[in-house]
Amino acid sequence: MGEFDLIERFFKRPPTRADVGIGDDCAIWSPRPGHQLAVSADMLVEGRHFLSTVEPRRLGHKALAVNLSDLAACGAQPQAFLLSLSLPRADEAWLQGFSEGLFKLADEHACELIGGDTTQGPLNIAITVLGDVPVGQSILRSSAQVGDDLYVSGHVGDARLALEAFRGHVSLPQAVFEQARLRMETPAPRVALGQALRGIAHGMADISDGLLGDLKHILNASHVGAEIDLVATKTLMGTSSLWPCPEDLAMTCVLSGGDDYELVFTTSPAAAAQVQSVAQATRTRITRIGCITASPGIVLRDDRGQAVDCHFPSFDHFASP
Amino acid sequence: MGEFDLIERFFKRPPTRADVGIGDDCAIWSPRPGHQLAVSADMLVEGRHFLSTVEPRRLGHKALAVNLSDLAACGAQPQAFLLSLSLPRADEAWLQGFSEGLFKLADEHACELIGGDTTQGPLNIAITVLGDVPVGQSILRSSAQVGDDLYVSGHVGDARLALEAFRGHVSLPQAVFEQARLRMETPAPRVALGQALRGIAHGMADISDGLLGDLKHILNASHVGAEIDLVATKTLMGTSSLWPCPEDLAMTCVLSGGDDYELVFTTSPAAAAQVQSVAQATRTRITRIGCITASPGIVLRDDRGQAVDCHFPSFDHFASP
Repeated sequence: MGEFDLIERFFKRPPTRADVGIGDDCAIWSPRPGHQLAVSADMLVEGRHFLSTVEPRRLGHKALAVNLSDLAACGAQPQAFLLSLSLPRADEAWLQGFSEGLFKLADEHACELIGGDTTQGPLNIAITVLGDVPVGQSILRSSAQVGDDLYVSGHVGDARLALEAFRGHVSLPQAVFEQARLRMETPAPRVALGQALRGIAHGMADISDGLLGDLKHILNASHVGAEIDLVATKTLMGTSSLWPCPEDLAMTCVLSGGDDYELVFTTSPAAAAQVQSVAQATRTRITRIGCITASPGIVLRDDRGQAVDCHFPSFDHFASP
Repeated sequence: MGEFDLIERFFKRPPTRADVGIGDDCAIWSPRPGHQLAVSADMLVEGRHFLSTVEPRRLGHKALAVNLSDLAACGAQPQAFLLSLSLPRADEAWLQGFSEGLFKLADEHACELIGGDTTQGPLNIAITVLGDVPVGQSILRSSAQVGDDLYVSGHVGDARLALEAFRGHVSLPQAVFEQARLRMETPAPRVALGQALRGIAHGMADISDGLLGDLKHILNASHVGAEIDLVATKTLMGTSSLWPCPEDLAMTCVLSGGDDYELVFTTSPAAAAQVQSVAQATRTRITRIGCITASPGIVLRDDRGQAVDCHFPSFDHFASP
C-alpha cells in the first residue's frame, strides 16, 4: 500500500465545511464572519506520550483529544484539523483502528480533517487544530485577577496513577487500574465547557503537564499568585472512591500528574452561580480549589489552614521520566 | 535546559501580526477581510527527508521552505506557521543553527511563528503553515484545461542528483556536487511566482515528489492528459551546464527526482505573454515543457516528435528507497 492509497483509504473523506479539503497542495478554508481563528499544534511520540501497547483506536482518539483540549482552553469551537503521521510501516489493522478512533472523536465535535502529511519513520503523530471564537471572546492565560475563585473541571490525577501502574511503581486493584487507564488513554476534551465559560472565566488553561504546572502558566501570564485548598484537591481523583490511595501518591498524581486534559480556570466570586449553571448545563463536575492572590507563587493549605511545603515538579519533556 | 527554556530561548519572539502568539493554549489569529485561509502541513523525518549530516541552519530553512512551497502552489501569501519539533536532546548548538535558518526564511516572507510543540523523541520536524488568498483566487490542481501550455519554474532534478551522489551511485565534479547539494538542502519556495500567477495559471502544483508524479496530480484532478517535450525538459537541470550528465541519469533526475520545490502549472496559450511578464517581474526562469491534452496519461516526445516509453516512478514514502 503506497502513500496515496493509504490516505485515500483511511483518511480521505468528502469535504464538508472546507472549500478545498485533502488532495491539493493546501486546504482552503473560509473563516466564519465575526470570528477569530484559534490554532494549536500537539505532537505525540511513542514511548513519551503513549505506550507502544496502546490500542490504535484509543491512540487515534487521544491524538485529537489533546489538541481539542487546547481549543477548549481558549473557549474556541473546533472546526478543522491537519494530521501529519510518521509510521514505521503501512500496517492496515493499525491504520483502521487509529483512523476509526480519530474520526469518531472528530465527528462528535464536527471537526473536519482538511490536510496533513504521511511519511515513513518512527511513530509520531502531529496534529494542528483550527477552531474559531467570536472576536474578542477567547479566554487567555493572562486574564486571571486577584480575588478570583480558582476552579478545576472533572477528575485529575487518574492518568498519572495509570502511568505509575504501567511503570510498576504501584499495584492497583483491577477496577482502579481499568478506570485510571481509560482516563489516560481516552481523555475527554472539555470543548463544551470551554465555550460555555466565555464571558465568565477570566484566566484558563488545560491541564496537560500537571495541575500546578499549568496553573503556574496562568499565574505567570497574569502576574498573580494562588492559594490552594488541599482538602478540596483530594477529592479530584476519580478513582479515589474505589480504593484507599496512599496520600503521597494521591497528591503527586493530582498536583503534578499531567495528561488530564481538564480545565483550570478563574472567575470573579460574583460569578459563582453562573459557574454552577454552566456545570449543570454541560454536565461537568466543577470543583473550587482555591483563589487567586496578589503575592506570586502557590501556597497549599491543609485542613487546618496551615501552609504546606510543596515540591511537585510539572512534566517537562526534556527532563528524565 | 527544559522544554519552556528551550522555547523561550530559541523560538519565542514578540507577536507581530498575531493577536496572541506563542505562550497560550492556542494562537489567536484574525484573517484579513476578503481572504480565504490556505493551510498545509509537512513533516520531515531524519533519514527519510534529510541526512543526519545536514547543517542545522539548512535544515531549519528547508523545513519551512517545503511548507511555503505548498502555499506558493495555491497562489497564497504566507502569514504564519506552527512548529512541532521532536528532538533526541536539547542540543544548544543545533537549536541555534536550526532556529536561525528557520527564522531567516520566515522573515524573508513575513511569516510569523505563532505556536507549536516541543518534545523529546526521534528527530522529527512537523510544520503547519497558514497563508491567505483573496476569495476565489486560489490556484488548484483541478483547473487545468485541454489545450493549455504546460510550464515549469526554475531548475529541476539537481536535488535528486545530489541524493544520488550522497548514496554513492554517481561521482560528481566538486562544483556540480556543491550546486546540487545547495538545491537539495536549501530550496527556494516560489512564493512570489505563485501569487503573481493568480488569474493566469489554471492548474498548479509544487514539485516535491518528482515532476511527472506531481504533474499526474494535476492531470488526475483535472481529468486531462499531457504531452511533454523531452528536448525542453533536458534544459531544466541547473547543473547541466557544468558537466556532461549521462542522459539516463538526467532524465531520471528531472522527471522523477523530487525535492525540487519548483512550480508546475498550466495556462491558456493566449496568456503566453503574461507568463513571460511574470517571469521577468519575479526574476524566475520559466520553461514551457509541453501542453495539456484530452486523452489521459502522459506522452513524452523526443527531438523527432516520437513518443518515448516512460517508466519513472514518483517518490512514495512507503516504497523502498
